[in-house]
Amino acid sequence: MDFREKMDEKFIGVLTDFMQSQSEESLYAAQQFSRLALEHKIPPEEIVNLQKSAMQELMPDLPPEVWHSFDILLEVMTAYGFAFREYQSLIDTQK
Amino acid sequence: MDFREKMDEKFIGVLTDFMQSQSEESLYAAQQFSRLALEHKIPPEEIVNLQKSAMQELMPDLPPEVWHSFDILLEVMTAYGFAFREYQSLIDTQK
Repeated sequence: MDFREKMDEKFIGVLTDFMQSQSEESLYAAQQFSRLALEHKIPPEEIVNLQKSAMQELMPDLPPEVWHSFDILLEVMTAYGFAFREYQSLIDTQK
Repeated sequence: MDFREKMDEKFIGVLTDFMQSQSEESLYAAQQFSRLALEHKIPPEEIVNLQKSAMQELMPDLPPEVWHSFDILLEVMTAYGFAFREYQSLIDTQK
């Protein structure tokens, strides 16, 4: 299993737990996931992609408009992704 | 109407158009929205919040799990928001 597949699996686990329990523990697991994603420089649009794929797996019968709505969020987050990459390269320059 | 309300309204317009038409024009409108949001330093978690509110208005009858799933995305994006704020302050320092 490569890193990307591991992240997919981890995210789907966090999401499923939270959707079922809304517990503090599952929220904490989401924070840990974020830290890992940031450490690995995963851009924000990838997170939205993960969320879309996870939801398609967990709730495949949602109306098609829901999936379209993810595409808009993906489009907006892609613009944020450029800022994120620029931030990463600024950080790398300062090292 | 304050700036935040204007952004809310603009976003809900972009989202509704895209959900109905999936047209190139509505995707372009989403890109313009992103540019405006970035110019105004709106953090990424605010975008997820906008998406959640807009979806609650447009599709109020979705299962509760969908709204819970937004809370996880919000949690993850909040971590990205810290990186975004740091990026903004680095940019401001360089000016």
